[in-house]
Amino acid sequence: MISLLYKSSYVFVLFYYAVIPLGYLTKWWVTVEKMKGNSTILVTGGSGYVGSHTIVELLKNNYTVIVLDNLVNSYSDGGCKPEALKRVEEITGETVTFYDVDITDRAALDKVFKNHKIDAVMHFAALKAVGESVRIPLKYYQNNVGGSAILLEVMACNGVKNMVFSSSATVYGDPQFLPITESHPTGQGCTNPYGKSKYFVEEIMKDVCTADPDWKVILLRYFNPVGAHESGLIGEDPSGIPNNLMPYIAQVAVGRRDKLQVFGSDYPTPDGTGVRDYIHITDLAIGHLKALERMFSPNFKSWKAYNLGTGHGYSVLDMVKAFSEVADRPINYEMVGRREGDIASCYADASLAKQELNWVATRDIKDMCRDTWNWQKKNPKGFKSS
Amino acid sequence: MISLLYKSSYVFVLFYYAVIPLGYLTKWWVTVEKMKGNSTILVTGGSGYVGSHTIVELLKNNYTVIVLDNLVNSYSDGGCKPEALKRVEEITGETVTFYDVDITDRAALDKVFKNHKIDAVMHFAALKAVGESVRIPLKYYQNNVGGSAILLEVMACNGVKNMVFSSSATVYGDPQFLPITESHPTGQGCTNPYGKSKYFVEEIMKDVCTADPDWKVILLRYFNPVGAHESGLIGEDPSGIPNNLMPYIAQVAVGRRDKLQVFGSDYPTPDGTGVRDYIHITDLAIGHLKALERMFSPNFKSWKAYNLGTGHGYSVLDMVKAFSEVADRPINYEMVGRREGDIASCYADASLAKQELNWVATRDIKDMCRDTWNWQKKNPKGFKSS
Repeated sequence: MISLLYKSSYVFVLFYYAVIPLGYLTKWWVTVEKMKGNSTILVTGGSGYVGSHTIVELLKNNYTVIVLDNLVNSYSDGGCKPEALKRVEEITGETVTFYDVDITDRAALDKVFKNHKIDAVMHFAALKAVGESVRIPLKYYQNNVGGSAILLEVMACNGVKNMVFSSSATVYGDPQFLPITESHPTGQGCTNPYGKSKYFVEEIMKDVCTADPDWKVILLRYFNPVGAHESGLIGEDPSGIPNNLMPYIAQVAVGRRDKLQVFGSDYPTPDGTGVRDYIHITDLAIGHLKALERMFSPNFKSWKAYNLGTGHGYSVLDMVKAFSEVADRPINYEMVGRREGDIASCYADASLAKQELNWVATRDIKDMCRDTWNWQKKNPKGFKSS
Repeated sequence: MISLLYKSSYVFVLFYYAVIPLGYLTKWWVTVEKMKGNSTILVTGGSGYVGSHTIVELLKNNYTVIVLDNLVNSYSDGGCKPEALKRVEEITGETVTFYDVDITDRAALDKVFKNHKIDAVMHFAALKAVGESVRIPLKYYQNNVGGSAILLEVMACNGVKNMVFSSSATVYGDPQFLPITESHPTGQGCTNPYGKSKYFVEEIMKDVCTADPDWKVILLRYFNPVGAHESGLIGEDPSGIPNNLMPYIAQVAVGRRDKLQVFGSDYPTPDGTGVRDYIHITDLAIGHLKALERMFSPNFKSWKAYNLGTGHGYSVLDMVKAFSEVADRPINYEMVGRREGDIASCYADASLAKQELNWVATRDIKDMCRDTWNWQKKNPKGFKSS
C-alpha cells in the first residue's frame, strides 16, 4: 500500500514537472513552426512602400504571401503584377499571389478568403496623404475606415481573426509628453482626416476584440519611415510632389526638384526645425515580422499597440546634413513659414516593442540616407524608371 | 452744386438706411418662405421614434417629406408603409413618400436623390442599442459610420449640402463638468461603439464642412428623449426588452413586464439613483424644426452643435414616482447593482439652443409621463397592437 502511494507520487511529480511543461513546450513549438513554415499571410496594400518591404521580410522567413492592392498609388506597366511586387520577387527569388482588389469590395474580398487558407492579415491598404485628406475627407473615411470595417467583417465570416494593423504615431495628436509611450492618449488633437481615420480604425479593432475573444490584433504605430531596401530595387515612390521630407530631399539631390522648402525654423527645438523619429523601412518591416510572431504566440490575447520608432529625434537640418554627406553634394534648401497642423517634436519611447516583441531598430540615420540615395539614383523616376 | 451734393447725400442716406436693409430683409424672407412653403426634406430613419415625431412637426409646417428607412427596427404589416408613418399621416392629414432603402445602399440612395429635388437631409437612420453595439460593433460602425459617409457622398454628388444630424449627448462621454455645454470635450471616454459611432460621424461631418464651404451641418446632441405624441398614435416602440427607462416603466405599468430593475442606488446623487435630462419627444421634434430654420438662414455657415435637453436632471426614482402618479398605480421596482458603463449624472446646458435656435423645451416631467402612458395604454404592444 505504502509502495503504491510512493509510486503514485512519482507519477504525480513526473506529470507535474515533465509532462505539463512538455505539453506547453510542444504547443509553443508547434505554433511557432506552423507560423514559420506554413502560414499564409494576406497583405492588403502590399504594393505600397511599407507593404512591399514587409513582404520581403515575410518571404525571407518562409511565409506564403497573398497580396491585395487596388493600385491607386502603385505603378504597374499593365502586366499581371505591379512593378513593386515584381521587384520583391526579384529580391527574394520567391513569388507572391496578387489580386487587384479594393478592400471596400466585399464580394471580391470574400473570394480571396475562399481561395486561400489565410492565417493572418497584415493590413496596410489606406490612403495616406495628410493634405489630400483635408480636401477630400469622405474618400479617406470610406477607404480607410469603411474599408477596414468591411475587411474585418469578411475576415470574421471566414474565421480569420488575426490582424496586424498599420497604424501611425499620428493617433497621438500633438504630444502631451516626450518620448511618446503607448499609454499616451490617442484621438485627441488629431487635426486631419488621415490621422483620425487611423484612430477610428484602432478603436473599431479594439471594440471587435472586446466583443469576440477569438480576435488577436496588434496595432503598430509607426513614427517616420524612411530609407529603402538595401538592394535599391524597392523604395518610397510618391506620386506627384512628395509629402514627406526624405523623398523630397532625395529628389532635390537627384535634380528632379529645385530645392527643399523647410517649413518652420522657429520651433522650440535645438536648431528651430521640426524634430521627428525617422526609422529605416527595413527595421519597420522586421518589426511587423516580430509582431506576427508575438500575435501567434499562445499567450497573446485580445489587442496590443506598439510604437515602432528608434527613440531618437532628428531635425530637418540633421537629415539634410546627413543626406548631403552620403550623396556627397549640397542639398539646396530654403526656410519658409510653418505648415499648418505640423508639430515641433515627436519621437517614440520604443521600449515596449523591445521588451515584448524582442525588436529594436538597428539602422541609423546614415543607413537611412544611404539606402534612400541608392534607391533614388537607381530609380530617378521611381518604379516608372524601369 | 451745393444742392446737387445735398441731393446726392440724400440718395446715399436712402440707399444706406433703406435699400440695403430692404435687400437683406427680402433675402431673408425669400429664404424663410422658400423653406417653409416649398422645401423638401429627406428624412432617413423616418419611421423610428425621433424621426416619426419630427416628421409630424415638418408636415404641420408645410414641408414636403420623403422618408427612407430599412425597417430593421420598425413594425410594418407588409403594406407599402410602416405603421408609424401611417399613423403620422393620420395625425397630420398629410402624406409622405416612403422608400424601403438602406443608407449603405449607394445606388438606391442615389435614385432617391434623382427622383426628388431635395433641399436638406435630416439623418436619423442608425442602430441605437448600446448593449448590442458592444456585442456586434462592426454592424454599428458599418451602418452608422459607413452608412453616413455614403449618404454624405451621395448628397454631395447630387448637390445637396444641408444636413441636420441626429447626434447624442453620449459623445461627451463621462461628463467632466455639469451642466454640459456644447464646448465640453467630445470623444473622450465614449465607452461603447454606439456612442463612438455618433462621435465619429460628427467628426466626419466637421471635416466635410472644413473641406467644402458649401456644406451646412447642424449636430443635435439629444439628452434623453421620452414621451409620445399627445394623440397617443405614435411613440417609442422598442423591439424586445427596452434598453431605456421610460418604455420599461410603461411596460411594467401596463402589465407587460413584472418589475423595473433600478441599476445602482449608490451613485453620488440626491437619492442614489442615476440622474438624466429627460426631454419630451415633441420638444425634441420642434428642436429639429428650429435647427432647420437656423440652417436655412443666410448667415449660417459650416457646422454647429446644439444640446437638446431641458437643463434639469431627474433621478430614476423621480421618474418612477411621476409615472406612478400619472398612471395612478404603483410601479413595481427593485434596486440592483450598477450597470457597466453607466454614469451618475448627465444634464444639459441648453442655453445655446435657446439663444441661437430660439428653442426651449416647454413640456415637463408630468407631460412626459402622461403622454408615455397614453401611448402605452392605447398600444400595449406598440405598433403591433394595431
